[in-house]
Amino acid sequence: MDITRRRTKAVQVGTVTIGGDSPISVQSMTKTRTDDVPATVAQILHLEDAGCEIVRCAVPDENAARALAEIKKQIHIPLVADIHFQHKLALEALESGADGLRINPGNIGDRKKVEEVVRAAAERNVPIRIGVNSGSLEKELRDQVERAKPEDRREATAQAMVESARTHIGILEDLGFDKIVISLKSSDVPTTIQAYRLMAQACGYPFHIGVTEAGSIVSGAVKSAVGLGVLLNEGLGDTVRVSLTGPPENEVRVAYMILGALGIRRRGPEIVSCPTCGRCQVDLVRIVEEVERSIADVKSPVRIAVMGCVVNGPGEATDADIGIACGKESGVLFKLGEIVRKISEEELARTLIGEVRRMTE
Amino acid sequence: MDITRRRTKAVQVGTVTIGGDSPISVQSMTKTRTDDVPATVAQILHLEDAGCEIVRCAVPDENAARALAEIKKQIHIPLVADIHFQHKLALEALESGADGLRINPGNIGDRKKVEEVVRAAAERNVPIRIGVNSGSLEKELRDQVERAKPEDRREATAQAMVESARTHIGILEDLGFDKIVISLKSSDVPTTIQAYRLMAQACGYPFHIGVTEAGSIVSGAVKSAVGLGVLLNEGLGDTVRVSLTGPPENEVRVAYMILGALGIRRRGPEIVSCPTCGRCQVDLVRIVEEVERSIADVKSPVRIAVMGCVVNGPGEATDADIGIACGKESGVLFKLGEIVRKISEEELARTLIGEVRRMTE
Repeated sequence: MDITRRRTKAVQVGTVTIGGDSPISVQSMTKTRTDDVPATVAQILHLEDAGCEIVRCAVPDENAARALAEIKKQIHIPLVADIHFQHKLALEALESGADGLRINPGNIGDRKKVEEVVRAAAERNVPIRIGVNSGSLEKELRDQVERAKPEDRREATAQAMVESARTHIGILEDLGFDKIVISLKSSDVPTTIQAYRLMAQACGYPFHIGVTEAGSIVSGAVKSAVGLGVLLNEGLGDTVRVSLTGPPENEVRVAYMILGALGIRRRGPEIVSCPTCGRCQVDLVRIVEEVERSIADVKSPVRIAVMGCVVNGPGEATDADIGIACGKESGVLFKLGEIVRKISEEELARTLIGEVRRMTE
Repeated sequence: MDITRRRTKAVQVGTVTIGGDSPISVQSMTKTRTDDVPATVAQILHLEDAGCEIVRCAVPDENAARALAEIKKQIHIPLVADIHFQHKLALEALESGADGLRINPGNIGDRKKVEEVVRAAAERNVPIRIGVNSGSLEKELRDQVERAKPEDRREATAQAMVESARTHIGILEDLGFDKIVISLKSSDVPTTIQAYRLMAQACGYPFHIGVTEAGSIVSGAVKSAVGLGVLLNEGLGDTVRVSLTGPPENEVRVAYMILGALGIRRRGPEIVSCPTCGRCQVDLVRIVEEVERSIADVKSPVRIAVMGCVVNGPGEATDADIGIACGKESGVLFKLGEIVRKISEEELARTLIGEVRRMTE
């Protein structure tokens, strides 16, 4: 099952390339007040540690726009300014050295204002993401959607989102500007998928993909995984942001889990653990929790099997880099396909953790 | 974006139909010792409450097989016996009144043994799931996979899984038995997807879909959502089991989240909540957590928006059945697209919870 990635233009955001042959990058957004520089920097450094490659900050006012300059000095990944309503804030963010801008066509204002932003971005060689959200479409597009029959709503919304993006692509292209990234996010998964599919037929700009306002950790991760999984599997998507209510590091972890599940990019451990059933004779849930917690900081990709019984245990443990297959109150340690030794139940978690550390250091 | 579901044969498992025009059903598996009848029944009743429609129990020995008769008397959903290694246990499970059998071609033994099981199942009109797992393929198929070049491993594994299933389909069909459900699970998502795609070209039996040994709650939910999301989006899958290490109710909840994300089936609340950013002026994370916790028992489908600011807040709140869009230390309650009233921050969660309860009772 090979995924053929859509051919897209390569767009540079600071030190990171989005699109072209570059790896699908992972990004997130800070949740602190942007003008609280120490808090925002601390959050970005955590995000960097989790593998975040581009970070975005809300710029709701001038203080936030000015803070970007100070924040940039203290971080190591490209910084994108998130702009809504006031185009002047985009100009100030550029002054502060933002590596990218996100503008929302639904609320940025008229053509003149957009043109002013584009000229300033072009001067500084800074890319612009046209970031459409189904929840904040231009009024006339929203009205158009509302006139659609209920059963046609999804399709109408997807089309309106694409139309919003295309209008703004037109404004940018008329000024000879082509450092463009596109996003088309809805909180409804099928609408999001359909919007990107339609857009893929209409342009070659790279896609920032995401399901917006996905929710809290489990339900939001599931919704994002379904939406981004389907899109990535169709070759759509050049950079990924998972939106979750809660700590932003979770967004980055879930993004890598999604990319890892499709074999696109791996970061950190992948634990293959059985659901357990009436056959299991060890406390597997406790072992999995302990292993997962203890190796959360491991960054190298490593596939670890933690299996409860003989049905799939030895098979999975053999396919993993390292693993244990349990039996009656004990288990067997496997490494790169070979049985290493038998271990008592009490020693299982500790032994596996130690071996993973040795393997990944 | 309409999903065209693959046309499949309808197969009856007790009171539930798998395949044909029937809704995609949600199933799970108990994690108690099956011969501990009170514990197993208690877990199944919890599963029923969470929306589980078919339950499977491991049958590792005669005590487990016999216990099924007593368990069946106390539950309300079809009971499937999970058989490995010993075909005699399948016969005993049928004696106990199992509504379905799952056999693993990789370890059930030779043709004669399978035939014995099939005849007994046919007599009782009980369906058989041929449940292939990449971790427990027949030895010769496993050897065949191991001879493949590393880059061809996934494809070779998917083909071997399909071959394993086809051989057993042949045995069943030779005896005129066609109450067959197929599953082809790997812990590797692309392998799982490819196996079902190949199988879809080869038969019309309904599919039980799942990613095996997916892991613990978040990572396992993500892996399952990617795999099942891609398959369901392609119209493949008639019944779903999410395998997670941990309480089985989580498997059912995640299964409904996946089906809900694609608009296939809805159960319970869907919370659209923003990730928050530097614009948010209320403690949205706390509000979302409180709302989520307080309405976890709601079974009717209801779309609830909990939005932190004015960018997408009013738009999303309007699209939801009910929602709040927050501003500075306060918020606005929306119901079916209309603003109802302004609420202070302290009252936001409680008001929303109360309104959801009233709406869904």
